[in-house]
Amino acid sequence: MEVFIREAGMVWKAESKEMGKAVTLSASDLLMRLLAFILTLAAAIVIATDKQTKVVPIQISDSLPPFHLPLTAKWDQMSAILYFLVTNAIACTYGALTLVVAVVNRGKSKGLWTVMTVLDAFMVALLFSGNGAAAAVGVLGYKGNSHVNWKKVCNVFDKFCGQMAVSIGVSLIGSLAFLLLVVIPVVRLHRRTLSINN
Amino acid sequence: MEVFIREAGMVWKAESKEMGKAVTLSASDLLMRLLAFILTLAAAIVIATDKQTKVVPIQISDSLPPFHLPLTAKWDQMSAILYFLVTNAIACTYGALTLVVAVVNRGKSKGLWTVMTVLDAFMVALLFSGNGAAAAVGVLGYKGNSHVNWKKVCNVFDKFCGQMAVSIGVSLIGSLAFLLLVVIPVVRLHRRTLSINN
Repeated sequence: MEVFIREAGMVWKAESKEMGKAVTLSASDLLMRLLAFILTLAAAIVIATDKQTKVVPIQISDSLPPFHLPLTAKWDQMSAILYFLVTNAIACTYGALTLVVAVVNRGKSKGLWTVMTVLDAFMVALLFSGNGAAAAVGVLGYKGNSHVNWKKVCNVFDKFCGQMAVSIGVSLIGSLAFLLLVVIPVVRLHRRTLSINN
Repeated sequence: MEVFIREAGMVWKAESKEMGKAVTLSASDLLMRLLAFILTLAAAIVIATDKQTKVVPIQISDSLPPFHLPLTAKWDQMSAILYFLVTNAIACTYGALTLVVAVVNRGKSKGLWTVMTVLDAFMVALLFSGNGAAAAVGVLGYKGNSHVNWKKVCNVFDKFCGQMAVSIGVSLIGSLAFLLLVVIPVVRLHRRTLSINN
């Protein structure tokens, strides 16, 4: 394919190679999508299987000896961690679906590719809000907050907090993969428009 | 400007009007950027000025009567709210700078426009992580959490929590404006590539 641009009476030949690659899906796109899928799936699995039971002394009154109760920490006990799990579950499901669509379609439907890039941007927003929420309660768990008298719990539930930190880290890298899935096509398309317009 | 595409011996004339608009900044872009700037600035101001002092009874021991202490709630007492303020401050500063750059440049430098769209995507990630963090501690403030024995505080600091909720809401709309700043050029550029390639 060759492209000619006529402007102010002059005819310019645009870079036809760049144009030819137009909206076919590149290997780097597929690899990044696979990475985004695997990482968000891993983050979801790591947090969903995160569970720790500890026998904790509970002081009810100064005059009575403390009770010893077995307490369990799990993802469903805090809405922020539940939200984090849901965002990663949505993102990995979406990642798997679009991976199949991308392989089957291989850039034939260009509208589909646009829709996918737009949805990728929504996934970035969703995942980062989930990461922010989980990190916020994670920091509270590790440090507590004296102003509102929320005591730290990660000194007791150390394994739970450690596994949650790993999950947040993995999810963050997965979120960055989704961010790159949005950013790379923008850079590529802009470059292509440049090669046509200049 | 007119664009002709020669493929397999045939010459096609592409939609030249779409091409002419190539990378000039549209009024909708500027409006959206202005909106993103104003909303994140408003969110930053609302949370930065959020302060409430209350006299709270503190029970130190069962045998003693409670102390009455004046306690103040402020954004700098919790790292999640501090992070939320910082993300909005960064986003509104960035919004103001790019608004000036967009008006001065008016699409002359196309590379600059690409850089701005990429940075917009990073702002989306930053803002949504801040919103998620603030919303997570906000939910804890309103509801508390019995599993980790973190008591709700918004029944006491009602005005502080209300103002924080407003700030999160405003920041969320500002974040959506940044998201649209990323999504709209993607849709527009894809459409333009389509009009050239089909």
